[in-house]
Amino acid sequence: MRLLLANPNSTDAVTHACAVLAHAAASPGTEVVPWTNREGPAAVDSLYTDYLAGGPLATRLASLTPRPDAVVLAGFGNYGTGAVKEVLDVPVVSLPEAAMAFATPLCHRFVIVTTSPRMIAYTEDVVQLLGFAPRCAAVRSVDLPPIGAGDPPADEVVVQLADVVAAARANDRADLVILGGARLSPHAEALRLRTPVVVIEPVACAVALAESLVRLHLTHSKTGKFAPPPRGPRGVRL
Amino acid sequence: MRLLLANPNSTDAVTHACAVLAHAAASPGTEVVPWTNREGPAAVDSLYTDYLAGGPLATRLASLTPRPDAVVLAGFGNYGTGAVKEVLDVPVVSLPEAAMAFATPLCHRFVIVTTSPRMIAYTEDVVQLLGFAPRCAAVRSVDLPPIGAGDPPADEVVVQLADVVAAARANDRADLVILGGARLSPHAEALRLRTPVVVIEPVACAVALAESLVRLHLTHSKTGKFAPPPRGPRGVRL
Amino acid sequence: MRLLLANPNSTDAVTHACAVLAHAAASPGTEVVPWTNREGPAAVDSLYTDYLAGGPLATRLASLTPRPDAVVLAGFGNYGTGAVKEVLDVPVVSLPEAAMAFATPLCHRFVIVTTSPRMIAYTEDVVQLLGFAPRCAAVRSVDLPPIGAGDPPADEVVVQLADVVAAARANDRADLVILGGARLSPHAEALRLRTPVVVIEPVACAVALAESLVRLHLTHSKTGKFAPPPRGPRGVRL
Amino acid sequence: MRLLLANPNSTDAVTHACAVLAHAAASPGTEVVPWTNREGPAAVDSLYTDYLAGGPLATRLASLTPRPDAVVLAGFGNYGTGAVKEVLDVPVVSLPEAAMAFATPLCHRFVIVTTSPRMIAYTEDVVQLLGFAPRCAAVRSVDLPPIGAGDPPADEVVVQLADVVAAARANDRADLVILGGARLSPHAEALRLRTPVVVIEPVACAVALAESLVRLHLTHSKTGKFAPPPRGPRGVRL
Amino acid sequence: MRLLLANPNSTDAVTHACAVLAHAAASPGTEVVPWTNREGPAAVDSLYTDYLAGGPLATRLASLTPRPDAVVLAGFGNYGTGAVKEVLDVPVVSLPEAAMAFATPLCHRFVIVTTSPRMIAYTEDVVQLLGFAPRCAAVRSVDLPPIGAGDPPADEVVVQLADVVAAARANDRADLVILGGARLSPHAEALRLRTPVVVIEPVACAVALAESLVRLHLTHSKTGKFAPPPRGPRGVRL
Amino acid sequence: MRLLLANPNSTDAVTHACAVLAHAAASPGTEVVPWTNREGPAAVDSLYTDYLAGGPLATRLASLTPRPDAVVLAGFGNYGTGAVKEVLDVPVVSLPEAAMAFATPLCHRFVIVTTSPRMIAYTEDVVQLLGFAPRCAAVRSVDLPPIGAGDPPADEVVVQLADVVAAARANDRADLVILGGARLSPHAEALRLRTPVVVIEPVACAVALAESLVRLHLTHSKTGKFAPPPRGPRGVRL
Repeated sequence: MRLLLANPNSTDAVTHACAVLAHAAASPGTEVVPWTNREGPAAVDSLYTDYLAGGPLATRLASLTPRPDAVVLAGFGNYGTGAVKEVLDVPVVSLPEAAMAFATPLCHRFVIVTTSPRMIAYTEDVVQLLGFAPRCAAVRSVDLPPIGAGDPPADEVVVQLADVVAAARANDRADLVILGGARLSPHAEALRLRTPVVVIEPVACAVALAESLVRLHLTHSKTGKFAPPPRGPRGVRL
Repeated sequence: MRLLLANPNSTDAVTHACAVLAHAAASPGTEVVPWTNREGPAAVDSLYTDYLAGGPLATRLASLTPRPDAVVLAGFGNYGTGAVKEVLDVPVVSLPEAAMAFATPLCHRFVIVTTSPRMIAYTEDVVQLLGFAPRCAAVRSVDLPPIGAGDPPADEVVVQLADVVAAARANDRADLVILGGARLSPHAEALRLRTPVVVIEPVACAVALAESLVRLHLTHSKTGKFAPPPRGPRGVRL
Repeated sequence: MRLLLANPNSTDAVTHACAVLAHAAASPGTEVVPWTNREGPAAVDSLYTDYLAGGPLATRLASLTPRPDAVVLAGFGNYGTGAVKEVLDVPVVSLPEAAMAFATPLCHRFVIVTTSPRMIAYTEDVVQLLGFAPRCAAVRSVDLPPIGAGDPPADEVVVQLADVVAAARANDRADLVILGGARLSPHAEALRLRTPVVVIEPVACAVALAESLVRLHLTHSKTGKFAPPPRGPRGVRL
Repeated sequence: MRLLLANPNSTDAVTHACAVLAHAAASPGTEVVPWTNREGPAAVDSLYTDYLAGGPLATRLASLTPRPDAVVLAGFGNYGTGAVKEVLDVPVVSLPEAAMAFATPLCHRFVIVTTSPRMIAYTEDVVQLLGFAPRCAAVRSVDLPPIGAGDPPADEVVVQLADVVAAARANDRADLVILGGARLSPHAEALRLRTPVVVIEPVACAVALAESLVRLHLTHSKTGKFAPPPRGPRGVRL
Repeated sequence: MRLLLANPNSTDAVTHACAVLAHAAASPGTEVVPWTNREGPAAVDSLYTDYLAGGPLATRLASLTPRPDAVVLAGFGNYGTGAVKEVLDVPVVSLPEAAMAFATPLCHRFVIVTTSPRMIAYTEDVVQLLGFAPRCAAVRSVDLPPIGAGDPPADEVVVQLADVVAAARANDRADLVILGGARLSPHAEALRLRTPVVVIEPVACAVALAESLVRLHLTHSKTGKFAPPPRGPRGVRL
Repeated sequence: MRLLLANPNSTDAVTHACAVLAHAAASPGTEVVPWTNREGPAAVDSLYTDYLAGGPLATRLASLTPRPDAVVLAGFGNYGTGAVKEVLDVPVVSLPEAAMAFATPLCHRFVIVTTSPRMIAYTEDVVQLLGFAPRCAAVRSVDLPPIGAGDPPADEVVVQLADVVAAARANDRADLVILGGARLSPHAEALRLRTPVVVIEPVACAVALAESLVRLHLTHSKTGKFAPPPRGPRGVRL
């Protein structure tokens, strides 16, 4: 099957990093096709860039040919996930959807660690919107500089992550951690060496979930929320 | 004071209809400046058009000169309300925010009537996101054709609204109704003649709330969720 | 318009302090008429005094002539707010109703600071009753002596407030503070100099909200919870 | 032990009817002392009369001598239950508290039937305030005339009750009903003959709960919400 | 009346300790009949032992002759409480049901202290299942060794309990503590000497609640969740 | 990989029917090993049979050799899912866990249809326990006879299912249905021909989820709720 791995931001390095994780997670026979949202912002690190990302993301994916068998939206946020589901019939899975779906059978309560303090409120809204609040012990964050400003050394990021996880285990009683940002995903393996808590890397989960949906011939319901957008004179052209 | 009335869609007729309501609600001394989101979709009638609206809406409002004293986002939805708050320092009020804020002291539980069945799920998400679910008895809808396909006669819309409100009063025990769509707002007065339930017209509430915030020197907090977006090499330029 | 500023307790100094804030917040053309609940307790600092206040408050306001255009209940509590709405047709706004309504578009989550630890549970119940729990990060308190025992110097109160707000920002991730007591309201301006968090002073919000409701010809619904009390042989005479 | 059965309204017939139920429920050795709130309203059938009841109720009970061993507040509402707990050290149990506490081990979800449609919102607030919303399937009502206007024949009330219960069983999937009003309590036995659903009569539960608390030397906590009201120069004198 | 005190585990010492508490709490005329779940595990200290306990517990109690007038399930957990209610018609009360029912009129929010950190998640599930989450400030724990490994000296347990309660009072603002484990119950009296917070000992509450239900001729509803199990070819034989 | 498909009840026909679905859903290379809980009840159709199933289920699976790579618990209920997770290190997935996890990205709100009215309350508890209540529009049921009494013709079951789904779509606004019982799973394909709503067949989802977890080297956290049961003198022997 062909799985489109759509990075909602325009930074190729992020697309590439996610693609590495996606390839590693994919089953034999799955072709992962990386795609970068060229018209999107360099990063989705605010509500504003979320909206800058979502419009072109949905528009471009709506007209993509050939249609992939499924789409993974490779960012840990909202950026129009529902909009993409409206304009497509094939399964569409975002990172928080997949990560939280996979986390539920694996823990009592999970913590999500995001990339910077300002993304905590944003991420809490995503959790609430997707209905996983009863299982989310807390949203916490490390503190990475803005994308493009140069990432800290991997070791330093992992130490930050391990500290946040240890605190969430002690204070929030979380027994599983979800890495809540595409920039954090590459550190999953290193983090696993430093904590007994289960570490969820969302790209792998989203690839696996998308593959499963394709195999089971399941896609999102088109009878309600995700029905195709109505057309009007100056409206949507799909 | 100068109050920008920003219609998130590109349909001038909607901007105009809202402007009429806004002028009627504004205090003496308030200048209401209508603004249409030229780069937006003809209507926000889906999650997809919500995202098409929000990106250009936030971008244009961010660079608008001279800065208004406050902004009313004249659509009953999300379309990047939080994004606009991030990029502006002056008060920004959306229709659902204002309508639900004003409804809370006036009722036990309110019903929101939206424009078509497909907008019910969308509107439920807005209610949830803004935290008003404990006071919302239900989201119901009339069934208007897509914008631009020609609106039904006003009488017919009012009859539909009155029927929905009567059902919501009986079944959902709602004692107040919020008109959940800019296309419904002009029918508020006519509806009031047909129901004893209090009718909230959101444009008027948003104008009044925006005026109050300006007068009280209050604006949204910039210390958390609505802090300015971080800048990066290819990131946001405000 | 004539706006009755009704202090639910019998302490003139509190009425006066609130009147100062109300006058400052009122629009030109609004006459603020201070009123003290002579038959009420010296302070509403318990559930008991809440009930001592509410009975005479509702009874006296029901028979007040001439009827004001709206009523602001100038205490941060319950003390029969719903009862007053039952016996009046004009808009009635309590301080927590107005403060939380105004806070919702301005923040992610607010903290309420009340006057003493024992009022925390009381205030939590008010928040729950009004349906704002999803937006309330926490209720915290300073520790003022009972009313009449002599207030601490203003500087000291402000320092206490600033400390509580700083802690709520760090620990509860609140990005807005509501001053949850009429005795705290006069310190709003001084507190604003000491914190980047938005400070909501409820008297001003309630005045603005009441004015708006009058201007928009909105009042509470009389079709449900706030219908006039039924009359009985020894029952209510309105 | 001496158990004060305090009717929050001033109608002796209600006190008497409750006393009959209380005597029937009391253990040997328990003396039930009926008490009528002479300064209260004829009925608590609104938020207004709730407050009219609560002030004198708490004040008189605070100074009652000799102190009873426990107090049952014989009305299905709020009317200052917390205020009474503040001013007393002995156990205080209201009808909704006792009825819902006893219902929890006996059902999946209960329905409360109140006396008239206007009391539904009032009763929903009581349920919410006491924290039993997760177990309450719905609040429904019969439609009794105001107290003193002459009660319908008992048969008619029972038929109304049975109809409401049957509907709540079918539609709300309730498997237990709580009679939510002192005027409904006398019909419990007759209702039991007409429904397989368990019928909770709150006066009996409150008597039993109060007796248990006395026997176990338990009373409400005085370290938080129910601490004695603070005294001030013109404040409370207990 | 005959009250069966059923210990879901097989440890006689626990049965005995609970029986001492039950006898002390029982009214004159109540015969407490201790019963030990011989086929159950030595302790219910995990989800696994919960299930090991519940099957034989329900099966043996279903066929017990003579039927007692009521059953108290003397463990602080789930272990098939609902199963026992299905197979019996007489009132069945578990410790968490009784303790939380009694706690609701006595506090603002309670803390449950369980026996070891691993039982916190288990106990949170019990609270959630029974619908008391709105009143539960937190679940905390002391750290006892596994049953049979030798209990620490009573003094040490009480010190641990007092420390946890003090922390819960300060941090979670709990004003009542429920001892969440049969092994903790015997320390209630000693703990009361060390904290001003009300201490709920669940065995006593369950005995009192069961007695009350018998006296009031109340038992769990058989019209819904607790209807007798359906019979099938190899199914249940009651 | 070897996937154990564990039927919690003792009815081979159910095991077989699930195995057919599991084989159809499994990836190449996955060996599905059906397993029947010989010591369990004929059906899990009550809380009692849930507990009869769970004890032997966990005990036998704990000692199974060789250990499978993952376990699917092929019943739509609880029956000790958490207990099995405690005693095993390999991924364990129950039908409701998998079905609801897969449903979340595919709909606004789902309805679960269970096998008989009495299982509605049981299933509501499962939904609540797993934390999916915010996404569950309702639990509804068809009305199958007890297992072993002879199933109705498949056509009749499908008609019942289609009717319930149509009602749930209209009244509960569900846009996806989960077949909440192993006996309903075989009808998924036929139901899909009769409704536009997405139909989730849980066995397939559980197989896919279990395969994904194995491939991603993920299993449930052993640091909290699912840690191995503590051992004691007469305790658990794993």
